[in-house]
Amino acid sequence: MADSVASLGGEFGFINLIRSRITDPAGIRGIGDDCAVLPMNSTTDLVVTTDLLIEDVHFILSDITAAQLAYKSAAVNLSDIAAMGARPIGCFLSIALPKNVTAKWADQFIESFIAICDRFGATLLGGDTTSSKGPIAINVAVLGKVPCGRSKLRSSARPGDLICCTGTLGDSGAGLDVVLSRVASAENAKLDADAEWLVRRHYEPTPRIQEGLLLGELEGVHAMMDISDGIASDLNHILKASSTGSVQLGADVHVEQLPLSSKLRRWSAANGKNAIELALTAGEDFELLMTISPNDLDRARGCLASLCPLTVIGEITASHKGIRYMDGDQELTQQFAGYTHF
Amino acid sequence: MADSVASLGGEFGFINLIRSRITDPAGIRGIGDDCAVLPMNSTTDLVVTTDLLIEDVHFILSDITAAQLAYKSAAVNLSDIAAMGARPIGCFLSIALPKNVTAKWADQFIESFIAICDRFGATLLGGDTTSSKGPIAINVAVLGKVPCGRSKLRSSARPGDLICCTGTLGDSGAGLDVVLSRVASAENAKLDADAEWLVRRHYEPTPRIQEGLLLGELEGVHAMMDISDGIASDLNHILKASSTGSVQLGADVHVEQLPLSSKLRRWSAANGKNAIELALTAGEDFELLMTISPNDLDRARGCLASLCPLTVIGEITASHKGIRYMDGDQELTQQFAGYTHF
Repeated sequence: MADSVASLGGEFGFINLIRSRITDPAGIRGIGDDCAVLPMNSTTDLVVTTDLLIEDVHFILSDITAAQLAYKSAAVNLSDIAAMGARPIGCFLSIALPKNVTAKWADQFIESFIAICDRFGATLLGGDTTSSKGPIAINVAVLGKVPCGRSKLRSSARPGDLICCTGTLGDSGAGLDVVLSRVASAENAKLDADAEWLVRRHYEPTPRIQEGLLLGELEGVHAMMDISDGIASDLNHILKASSTGSVQLGADVHVEQLPLSSKLRRWSAANGKNAIELALTAGEDFELLMTISPNDLDRARGCLASLCPLTVIGEITASHKGIRYMDGDQELTQQFAGYTHF
Repeated sequence: MADSVASLGGEFGFINLIRSRITDPAGIRGIGDDCAVLPMNSTTDLVVTTDLLIEDVHFILSDITAAQLAYKSAAVNLSDIAAMGARPIGCFLSIALPKNVTAKWADQFIESFIAICDRFGATLLGGDTTSSKGPIAINVAVLGKVPCGRSKLRSSARPGDLICCTGTLGDSGAGLDVVLSRVASAENAKLDADAEWLVRRHYEPTPRIQEGLLLGELEGVHAMMDISDGIASDLNHILKASSTGSVQLGADVHVEQLPLSSKLRRWSAANGKNAIELALTAGEDFELLMTISPNDLDRARGCLASLCPLTVIGEITASHKGIRYMDGDQELTQQFAGYTHF
């Protein structure tokens, strides 16, 4: 429909419409990063993020447990705090529930929500509860803190930086594929161990809070964000935010270097799926994507040694715009696009 | 359904379930007031509130304009900031839109949302946009600031305090009645001027920010909150929060003193509605409800003189529990209940 909200150019068109109407107050960074950044006191900045999850868009109620849904609702927000190199301090939960949701479901949701928030230091401080005549809607907002001026932004990438990410990519997208097949078949067939693990990666992503804090302390870590829509989309945000009038940044991404789990490789091979494409486009991995000065790669890897792998997947360049996908020396002709909501 | 979320005892049962599982960190006040209160620096506390609006629960899309919906989504949150005696500093908007929403609608929503936020100093700093396969869902979170330790809480009422409110009550409930009749009749008949005004009071409540800031400076203003569910519900929150193990507080509310607009009186008389009941139970007036030391009433009224009326509607007492509704010297036998979601 030419006149629909989609005609604004997808969700990012809608966000750009909003951005075009706003000027940030002095000292505050609003829309454009994983969190807004506000001055709090002489040593600390406040960071704030919020995410909205809607039944049948972000999850299928019949396939996810109350505990998993609560976990994921918190984790996607905690991941934004991690992306700034910040420490969570509190969270707010708004939830709209149909009247036929059971008390047991509500109780399990709350128990799980509080457990993950407590685990990462984000005490539940408030929220809103309401009924819904349709789908469940869950909005979470998380506050965090970061040393003054030290939050990691999308706008700090420099030519020559290495593009790196934590963990493995594409698992969540494969897990979603498994979930959708399971829902479509309406059978609750037992999954094999690989599929089971991939589904867990989709429903229970690990917010990289500790990793974000450690990387946040390194000056050589320049731009950072979390991977929510897939590198094909998310890396473009870094390129756009870090380009200036005089220097337009691009990236080379080496698809053979993408960190793929053995489980994703086996599952993809067995099911005729393209693991590379999942890693680039499916999103919801909630790993950290960053650009690092080559001199600081070893230090960054050392910091994360006991926590998770840090993989170089490409470089920032000023010699071309946009993302070029390379397989060895060959430029891929295939283009990739991340997830978009409209 | 005995096992449904409603069996927890309504929305407040659900909130109590959540509260029972949480301990506030030192120095932070979480659930229990209109906003959470967090220390920000040596002079200022941060206050945070969030509210979720769901299509067909909080609004009927065919009857409300995009601009009105945006205004109301912001206003109900700004009202919570006002209730703490705080000043808004920023806000976050999460919105789930069906794909058939028009770009024009989205544009008008954003324009109106930013206009009201700017008017009250709450710059839009971030949020989330997503599609919805069902109703529109809108979550707003607002941050505010207040001098350290000076936020107005529900727990500060004292025996002998006068119970006061700003503005007039019941208009919003009457406006909702007009809206529901209009939707049910599926006719867009022209409303008379009174009905038109009442609908506007329902769709465009005034956040009492300036009033809250002025009242916030007065030590004689003890407990404060905004009227979202109706006095019959909201005043009970003050009584409960302000009671201690040794002193259980109650209230006398004088129904003949309730501030009713002339338009509500005329409309109620013409339509066979009970204005008193609307004022006590319908909620969504978003006026401020507070308890004031009798010695400070004149000062409080003086502060608000040019802004809005401040009406005494009852007293806090330690001589009985709960709310007693009086009409002159007569205690009413009718009981009233505020709005509840489950």
